[in-house]
Amino acid sequence: MTKHRIAILGASGYTGAELVRLIATHPGLEIVAMSADRKAGQTMAQVFPHLRHLDLPMLCKIDEIDFAGVDLCFCALPHATSQEVIRGLPRDLKIVDLSADFRLRDPKVYEAWYGHEHFALDIQNEAVYGLTEFYRDEIRAARVVAGTGCNSMTGLFPLLPPLIDGVIDADDIIIDLATGVSGAGRSAKEGLLHAEVSEGYHAYNVAKHRHMAEFDQEFSKFTGREVRVTFVPHLLPQNRGILATCYVKGEAEAIHASLARRYADEPFLVVLPLGEAPATRHVRGSNFCHLGVIPDRDPGRDPGRVMIFSALDNLTKGSSGQAVQNANLMLGLDETAGLMAAPIFP
Amino acid sequence: MTKHRIAILGASGYTGAELVRLIATHPGLEIVAMSADRKAGQTMAQVFPHLRHLDLPMLCKIDEIDFAGVDLCFCALPHATSQEVIRGLPRDLKIVDLSADFRLRDPKVYEAWYGHEHFALDIQNEAVYGLTEFYRDEIRAARVVAGTGCNSMTGLFPLLPPLIDGVIDADDIIIDLATGVSGAGRSAKEGLLHAEVSEGYHAYNVAKHRHMAEFDQEFSKFTGREVRVTFVPHLLPQNRGILATCYVKGEAEAIHASLARRYADEPFLVVLPLGEAPATRHVRGSNFCHLGVIPDRDPGRDPGRVMIFSALDNLTKGSSGQAVQNANLMLGLDETAGLMAAPIFP
Amino acid sequence: MTKHRIAILGASGYTGAELVRLIATHPGLEIVAMSADRKAGQTMAQVFPHLRHLDLPMLCKIDEIDFAGVDLCFCALPHATSQEVIRGLPRDLKIVDLSADFRLRDPKVYEAWYGHEHFALDIQNEAVYGLTEFYRDEIRAARVVAGTGCNSMTGLFPLLPPLIDGVIDADDIIIDLATGVSGAGRSAKEGLLHAEVSEGYHAYNVAKHRHMAEFDQEFSKFTGREVRVTFVPHLLPQNRGILATCYVKGEAEAIHASLARRYADEPFLVVLPLGEAPATRHVRGSNFCHLGVIPDRDPGRDPGRVMIFSALDNLTKGSSGQAVQNANLMLGLDETAGLMAAPIFP
Amino acid sequence: MTKHRIAILGASGYTGAELVRLIATHPGLEIVAMSADRKAGQTMAQVFPHLRHLDLPMLCKIDEIDFAGVDLCFCALPHATSQEVIRGLPRDLKIVDLSADFRLRDPKVYEAWYGHEHFALDIQNEAVYGLTEFYRDEIRAARVVAGTGCNSMTGLFPLLPPLIDGVIDADDIIIDLATGVSGAGRSAKEGLLHAEVSEGYHAYNVAKHRHMAEFDQEFSKFTGREVRVTFVPHLLPQNRGILATCYVKGEAEAIHASLARRYADEPFLVVLPLGEAPATRHVRGSNFCHLGVIPDRDPGRDPGRVMIFSALDNLTKGSSGQAVQNANLMLGLDETAGLMAAPIFP
Repeated sequence: MTKHRIAILGASGYTGAELVRLIATHPGLEIVAMSADRKAGQTMAQVFPHLRHLDLPMLCKIDEIDFAGVDLCFCALPHATSQEVIRGLPRDLKIVDLSADFRLRDPKVYEAWYGHEHFALDIQNEAVYGLTEFYRDEIRAARVVAGTGCNSMTGLFPLLPPLIDGVIDADDIIIDLATGVSGAGRSAKEGLLHAEVSEGYHAYNVAKHRHMAEFDQEFSKFTGREVRVTFVPHLLPQNRGILATCYVKGEAEAIHASLARRYADEPFLVVLPLGEAPATRHVRGSNFCHLGVIPDRDPGRDPGRVMIFSALDNLTKGSSGQAVQNANLMLGLDETAGLMAAPIFP
Repeated sequence: MTKHRIAILGASGYTGAELVRLIATHPGLEIVAMSADRKAGQTMAQVFPHLRHLDLPMLCKIDEIDFAGVDLCFCALPHATSQEVIRGLPRDLKIVDLSADFRLRDPKVYEAWYGHEHFALDIQNEAVYGLTEFYRDEIRAARVVAGTGCNSMTGLFPLLPPLIDGVIDADDIIIDLATGVSGAGRSAKEGLLHAEVSEGYHAYNVAKHRHMAEFDQEFSKFTGREVRVTFVPHLLPQNRGILATCYVKGEAEAIHASLARRYADEPFLVVLPLGEAPATRHVRGSNFCHLGVIPDRDPGRDPGRVMIFSALDNLTKGSSGQAVQNANLMLGLDETAGLMAAPIFP
Repeated sequence: MTKHRIAILGASGYTGAELVRLIATHPGLEIVAMSADRKAGQTMAQVFPHLRHLDLPMLCKIDEIDFAGVDLCFCALPHATSQEVIRGLPRDLKIVDLSADFRLRDPKVYEAWYGHEHFALDIQNEAVYGLTEFYRDEIRAARVVAGTGCNSMTGLFPLLPPLIDGVIDADDIIIDLATGVSGAGRSAKEGLLHAEVSEGYHAYNVAKHRHMAEFDQEFSKFTGREVRVTFVPHLLPQNRGILATCYVKGEAEAIHASLARRYADEPFLVVLPLGEAPATRHVRGSNFCHLGVIPDRDPGRDPGRVMIFSALDNLTKGSSGQAVQNANLMLGLDETAGLMAAPIFP
Repeated sequence: MTKHRIAILGASGYTGAELVRLIATHPGLEIVAMSADRKAGQTMAQVFPHLRHLDLPMLCKIDEIDFAGVDLCFCALPHATSQEVIRGLPRDLKIVDLSADFRLRDPKVYEAWYGHEHFALDIQNEAVYGLTEFYRDEIRAARVVAGTGCNSMTGLFPLLPPLIDGVIDADDIIIDLATGVSGAGRSAKEGLLHAEVSEGYHAYNVAKHRHMAEFDQEFSKFTGREVRVTFVPHLLPQNRGILATCYVKGEAEAIHASLARRYADEPFLVVLPLGEAPATRHVRGSNFCHLGVIPDRDPGRDPGRVMIFSALDNLTKGSSGQAVQNANLMLGLDETAGLMAAPIFP
């Protein structure tokens, strides 16, 4: 079988490396070009020694890539840079963007959350939101797919089905989330040092994390009314994994049934038996997302709630795995190609 | 100065070791006896090599201790065992119990949560709940003090003042909590292995953790009405530290003012400026508790909430440090004696 | 393609789970039976939730397995148990044993290191030592293969080629080794708790680790004289990975050339450029082993040495990956089938 | 008692914070000034929230400090900067320098290892090497004390006594060392990120670490001949702690006796019983150093060696604790003042 030719822009970050890891054993994809602006001229082995056994192209500048020989391009660049680069790429090139740049349909919302106007509104107009399980048909037909935020996805999976089915109160939703540090990327910042992250836990960007804009957009779209949720992310002393603990009002059995029904045929979404809670370590390194529902002790009385949990690996299902899944659809491949590896535990 | 003579029962667990660590540099306490049933006959250096530089009594059986020479006894035994042992101790011996055995005033509530009737109700009757900052005078006069649960304390500190002051809705409280693994003690269980705890995060005992009984008891007592909260604990891949993220309805400034006023003169409770979140790593190994208040993005609209955070070290302020603080009061010592060591970071 | 039918005995340990993980995406193997004595009757999802997306047979007792329908059996049982079980299995069943039971050819040596006589000497006689890269032909023809110890392998790979080539002094070898905690298995022991392993480092079984017997056997066999090495293992606060730092006398270029030549065509052994050191995190979850050679600062003078490093994942290349590699050979499959997944980093 | 007035230059690094932590409960020292060039104008609570309960001076520029009101100054600046700053300080000010700048007595050696000529040779001339247990009298009388490197100290403690006593072969010494990441300081470098340090282990600066110059200097000084050792440091996935595993030739009992005799009256050096190995977690956060000696399995034959282990906390005994210990001597205080806190475990 001829393999589809893949370029990766921004291959020197963690999501870039994760793309390479996944594509390395993918039966239908082949990497033909990789860019990394500041590391152009280096081999991937120098930048990521865990990939040194692979036969990969040298890292180069974006403008050194001949996109005529590329079937699909993954963009793993920082936001803002991504839109600058993508508007300069051939207009018939299939693109899966991993940044935040094309996730928000309303330019005013983008501007409000990201602090500057959008540079590539025409591409924004054609971009499809990359939440595969809810946009599968659009993604299949799309030229540009915008990967969902890893935190957003972790909150959307457990909440969209019961919201759509009307079995939870849309006005009373809290998403308490904890994420591993790799989500912040490979940037040399004091707050990401081992000594600052290990053996400790804290909330960050409380009630102002940018992924909230995706919650607003998607929850409102799928319910047909404006929905706002309370969202507090925390930083975990671990590399991979996000757990969302969603506090909702509703009836546990109905919520569980809603999730089970909606995700019955999904290859990567696993709904645990009612009463069980997932763990991030059980999806590590994989494209799976585990979902669980547990009722409060006194469901009938205040503040009796239901807790919906979801766990996924921010670099795989939350980013690069999701990107490959969408690329599979865009290229007419089996959606699960290259993505069925089991989680790695311990 | 003559030092008060201290016995520690159950010295071979983590809270026992933490008591020894704190007392080692305490100006007014001296350890004269230490028991550890299965490790009787061993030195503390064998059981806890980090304490090997100390000149300590040999570990012994409880019945080998001459309590006539003891001024105060710390009980760091498992629950149920603790009440069995304490009812056999001299009735004039001062006791600080670290177990759950004497925390719940209503025997029926104890029975409901712990699955068996209480064996020492007379001692329960005289026991004072060890939440120092709210029971200081009673503790000073008490013979038996029951240490609060580490999770309970982490939820009580941020919520009691605003509840007492009536600035939050008592019917709409969620305590999302994450705790380090040392809280589970030094028991050889599969779920506590390094390979099962590190690099992962999950909720446990969802909506059924026994420390909820303390929430019920204390929140109801201080508000004069029955209060129930939603409580979900999670296990962190770290040894020490608890962070509570409390979701409440109210006005952030009023809540912050309530905490700041209530804890203004407290030596160990530190209220951060409004808008700042605490981190467990910043109280590690210390008796301090950091509290923070952050409003939701749209305080005026649904589900606009306020988040109150508290962070403490479960082994120090959450257990053995609290115990020493209470012992200081019971013995007429300076409440902060031996407890002012700064947190250890990184 | 018809898949070979596989049984796994002792599937409830970490090496058992790792076998399942690797076989899950293996093109030529299919799991038809899995035993776990104390967990018989449970599903694998209950024992290892990270494998819950797989369609696997229920865990059973060994005597419930019909070995007529099994082409090859992996034995991931504790040592001593393994020999008891294997001597009761059909004598024409292909077996890959992951325990220490059939590694030592001399029964007296076995008895000396393991403290009891060997129960299945006839099987010991036919067992081939599973160090694939040095016993490939024998393994292809073998019925029973004894997996090498994970520490042994980590020391054998860097030292065998230069010893065989005579470019290092056989009488002056030190193997300083550090290993992740998963090598100790999923047993609930105090010393393996998160609180006892994380944030610390220490040597254990100094100069008396049982894997030394394999060093003695293999180094002596390949050099034709008795070789003894100094061996000190340490426990790392991490789950996976072994790093050996070998201190030898010789000339760095010659040693590097020896390794490069010997492993030039090996699919899983990667020799880094002279002067580079490997890291365990760069082989995590994979079947690769990275090797490096660095000369001392003054090679010509005392105690001028050369350091040879090797890094591998104890659960994959060090155990279950190696087992699958050997099974591939025994079943006439491509040796690398199911084993080419890239390491997972971070 | 009037407290001695202390200034800390470079208070925004980990060793600066550790000095503050130790001095916070020190009975004889009081911090009157703290500098941090880039963070001047901030409070210590902003830079290190774990110290927020302390009443500390604002961080300032060095030239804002009035050194007339300072009795002793700790210099926790980067090397090279330290010598620049110290040569501008009053010539009668007592100084404890934590950098590498005044450790090497021979300017040529300094130049060779640090790549530039020394800027303050007159101060180098009067500086005393801060290895308290071997330079106690000189330190008591010194104006300037140069703190030893944390790795150097971890190798010097186990090896100096047997070298001085002539019970080990000076020409055959290997120091294999593993260190926690806080030793690298609070600098935002990719290699120190949580994702790059956790769950992995590797050697760095093999045979070229600058602390080797201190080994050369001190081992040669105390033996009266030129001694060279092989030295390989490794990076541990933990914050604090160094373990040295020293491979030597000699007789275990004699080595153990040498250490026991030499350190019998040392308050911070603890020699374990023969055959026991220390662990870094058992000295965490303390000024203690644990030492152990274990013979090889066949002491009489090649390569039969003896292993000497030492474990200390790089930020405490290895740096800031050592600095306070030396300051205590220089100020005529009890050497152990403020330093007897027990290690924190777990």
